[in-house]
Amino acid sequence: MLNQNNVILGQNRSAIRELFEYAKKRKTEIGEENVFDFSIGNPSVPPPVEVETALSDLINTASFEELHGYTSAHGCYSVRKVIADYLNGKFNTSLNAECLYMTCGAAASLTITLNALLNEGDEVIVFVPYFPEYKVYTEHARAKFVAVKCEEKTFLPDLNALKNTLSPATKAVIINSPNNPSGVVYGEEIIKNIAEILGDFYKKTGNAVYLISDEPYRELVYDGITVPFIMNYYSRSIVCYSYSKSLSLAGERIGYIAVNNAMEDFLEVYAAVCGAGRSLGFVCAPSLFQKLIERVCGITSDISVYERNRNLLYRALIEYGYEVVKPDGAFYMFVKSPEVDDKAFVERAKRYELLIVPGECFGYKGYVRVSYCVNTDVIERALPAFKSLAESYKLI
Amino acid sequence: MLNQNNVILGQNRSAIRELFEYAKKRKTEIGEENVFDFSIGNPSVPPPVEVETALSDLINTASFEELHGYTSAHGCYSVRKVIADYLNGKFNTSLNAECLYMTCGAAASLTITLNALLNEGDEVIVFVPYFPEYKVYTEHARAKFVAVKCEEKTFLPDLNALKNTLSPATKAVIINSPNNPSGVVYGEEIIKNIAEILGDFYKKTGNAVYLISDEPYRELVYDGITVPFIMNYYSRSIVCYSYSKSLSLAGERIGYIAVNNAMEDFLEVYAAVCGAGRSLGFVCAPSLFQKLIERVCGITSDISVYERNRNLLYRALIEYGYEVVKPDGAFYMFVKSPEVDDKAFVERAKRYELLIVPGECFGYKGYVRVSYCVNTDVIERALPAFKSLAESYKLI
Repeated sequence: MLNQNNVILGQNRSAIRELFEYAKKRKTEIGEENVFDFSIGNPSVPPPVEVETALSDLINTASFEELHGYTSAHGCYSVRKVIADYLNGKFNTSLNAECLYMTCGAAASLTITLNALLNEGDEVIVFVPYFPEYKVYTEHARAKFVAVKCEEKTFLPDLNALKNTLSPATKAVIINSPNNPSGVVYGEEIIKNIAEILGDFYKKTGNAVYLISDEPYRELVYDGITVPFIMNYYSRSIVCYSYSKSLSLAGERIGYIAVNNAMEDFLEVYAAVCGAGRSLGFVCAPSLFQKLIERVCGITSDISVYERNRNLLYRALIEYGYEVVKPDGAFYMFVKSPEVDDKAFVERAKRYELLIVPGECFGYKGYVRVSYCVNTDVIERALPAFKSLAESYKLI
Repeated sequence: MLNQNNVILGQNRSAIRELFEYAKKRKTEIGEENVFDFSIGNPSVPPPVEVETALSDLINTASFEELHGYTSAHGCYSVRKVIADYLNGKFNTSLNAECLYMTCGAAASLTITLNALLNEGDEVIVFVPYFPEYKVYTEHARAKFVAVKCEEKTFLPDLNALKNTLSPATKAVIINSPNNPSGVVYGEEIIKNIAEILGDFYKKTGNAVYLISDEPYRELVYDGITVPFIMNYYSRSIVCYSYSKSLSLAGERIGYIAVNNAMEDFLEVYAAVCGAGRSLGFVCAPSLFQKLIERVCGITSDISVYERNRNLLYRALIEYGYEVVKPDGAFYMFVKSPEVDDKAFVERAKRYELLIVPGECFGYKGYVRVSYCVNTDVIERALPAFKSLAESYKLI
C-alpha cells in the first residue's frame, strides 16, 4: 500500500486547480479576451527592471562555481547578511546572517518551520479563512490543525476564540497578513493582543507557543499602511517570507525563514530549521536566485497596479450591491456570496464568464475570493459581467 | 519541545561538513594552492556552453510569465515531454510527459518518492556503502532503513544478502549507480539479478517492492561503458535524476522523477508523488531552469576531465601501494585505509594536507572516499603527498 495521505492529496484536484483547467478550456472555446479569470494568484506585473539587469549581469560576469555551485545548506552567507541588514534597517531589529535560512519559497519556509517545531500530537492554530496548504503542511508533520474563527465584520482574529483554543498541545500559531484570501492586514493592535495572549499563556502554563508569520504579501499594501513586524512584539517568532509576489518571481522558488534571535531557545530552533530542511530534501535554495536577491533586496515590482485594480474593483462591486471585505493588501478580495451556497454562486458567475474561487477552499463558506492580479483592462471589461451577475440576484 | 530528530540533524555537523570548514581555515593559513581538497562533490568543470547561451537567450526573449511564473506543480508540460522523448530515444522506453515530475534536484526526487511510497514501519533496503542522506530521508518518512552489504572485492550488491533481507515490510530498494562513494557501476547482469529477486519475491509472497534508482551520475562513466536503465528490467521502478552533475548546476536544484508507466499501479504511484511533493512544500521546480532543460536536455559538461583525473589518480595510487576499488563512473574513488581505523587514516592524511572523507560516513569503515572532481593540476600537485602518506605506512 502506498502512502494513502499522499495518494489522496495527489488525486484530489483542488477547486482552484479545477477552475484553472476550466479556464484553459473555456478560453479556447470563446477566446481568451472573453473569459474573466480571477481565480489565480500569479503576479500580473513584471519583475522590476533591476531583476532583469542583475540577472544578465550575474550570468555575464560571475564564475560558474559562484553562480551555479552548491551554496551552504542554509544559504549563501553574503545573501543572508544583506537580508538581515535590510530587515534591521527597516524594522529596527538586531538580526544577523545566522538568523536567516534561505528557502525554495514560502511553501518551503512553512514546511521547514513546521517540521522543525512539531512533534506528533502537537496543535497548530490558524485563523479562518486560511491558505489551504497550511492544513496539508501541518498534517504532514503529524500535528493537529486547529482552525479559529475571525470576527465576522473585520475578518481579524477573534481574540477570545484564540484564548479559549490555546491548550497544552498548542505549539504554534500561524498568521498571514496581508491575508490570502481576505486581503485584510493585521494592524499593530491585533499583533500586540496576540503577543500578549501568547505571553500570558506562557506565564500561566509554561507552554511556549511559537508565532509563525507567513508574509509573502508584506509589501503589497495600499493607502500607505504598513504591516507590523512580529519580531518587535513577540520574541518566539519566526517569519516565513517569499519573493514570489514582491518581485514577481513565483516560479523561481526563492524566499527565507528568519528566526528571531531574541527568543530564549534561538540556537535550538535554528538548528531544528536546518535539520528539517535537510530531512525534507532541501539541499540549498536555487543559487542563481540567491545571488540575485543579494543585489535587489528591498526592491519590488510596480505594486501601484494592484492598488489601482483594487480601487477600481472594490468601488464597482460596492456600487453593484455586493458585500465586500475591503482589502488593505495582497491582491485578493473576499466577497460575500449573495446566496448561502458559495459554490452555487461560483457556478452562476461562470455563466457570465467570471471565474472566482469558493470560500469553502479557504475553510470559510458563504464567501468567494476574487484575485485582482490581472491586467487592469481585464477588470474594466469584466465590470459589466459583475453587474449583470448582481442584477441576477437583484442586488441592484 | 522542538522536533528532536531535526534538532539533532541540524546540530550534528557531518564529517564532510567538518572537513569543508577545516579546508577553509587551512587554506587561509597556508595558501589555497597548498591544500589538496578531495572532500566534496561539487562539479569542477563548467556547464556546457549551450547552458550559457540558452540562459541568456531565455532571459532576453521569453516573457516574464513564461520565464518566472508558476508552472504546474509537476512541472511544465513541454519540459516533461522533451525529457520523456529523450529517454525513449535513448532507452527504447514508452514514457510520456505524464510519467515525469520535475523536482528541485535529486534530494527532492528522493524525499518525494519515499514519502509517496512509505508508511510508518515500512522498510527500505540500501546497499553499503551509501549516500548518508538516504537514511535521513527514509527515517523522515517513518520507515526503517535497512543496510545490506556489498561483495568485498567488487563493491557490487551481495545478492544472497538481499534475498535474505527481503521481508513483508520491505517497500523499496534504493540503488545508486554510478555509486557515491565507490564509483562502481552496476552492469546489466546485476540489474537483471536484482529485478529477478524482487520479481520472485512478489510471485512468492505478493509483496510488491519498488526499485528506486538514484542516478545523478548516470552520464559520468568512463571507458565507453553504459549504465543499464532500470525501467527496461523491472516494471515497478522509479528513476530519481538530477542535472547537478551532468550539467554542473548543483546549486540550481533541478531534476526529475520518472515513474515507469509499465507498472500496474502507475496512476496511483504518480498521484502519490504529486501528493508527496505538495505535502513536503515543493510548489514547482525552479521555472527558469525547467525552461533551460527543455533546451539542453541530453547535453553534458565536458566529462572527459573526470576520466582524465580518474586515470591519473588511480594509476598513481595503485603504484604507491594503495588498494583501490577501480571506479567506472561518478567522480569518487574508494580507497582502503592502510590501517583499520579510517578516521585515523584521514587524520594522518591531513598532515600531508590531503583532505579525504572517512568511509564511516557512508556506513563502511576501513575505507576513505577521494573526490576527484577537482582541477587536474590539483591531482598532479597532490601526488607527492599521496606518495609520502603511503611511505609513512610502508606501502611502498
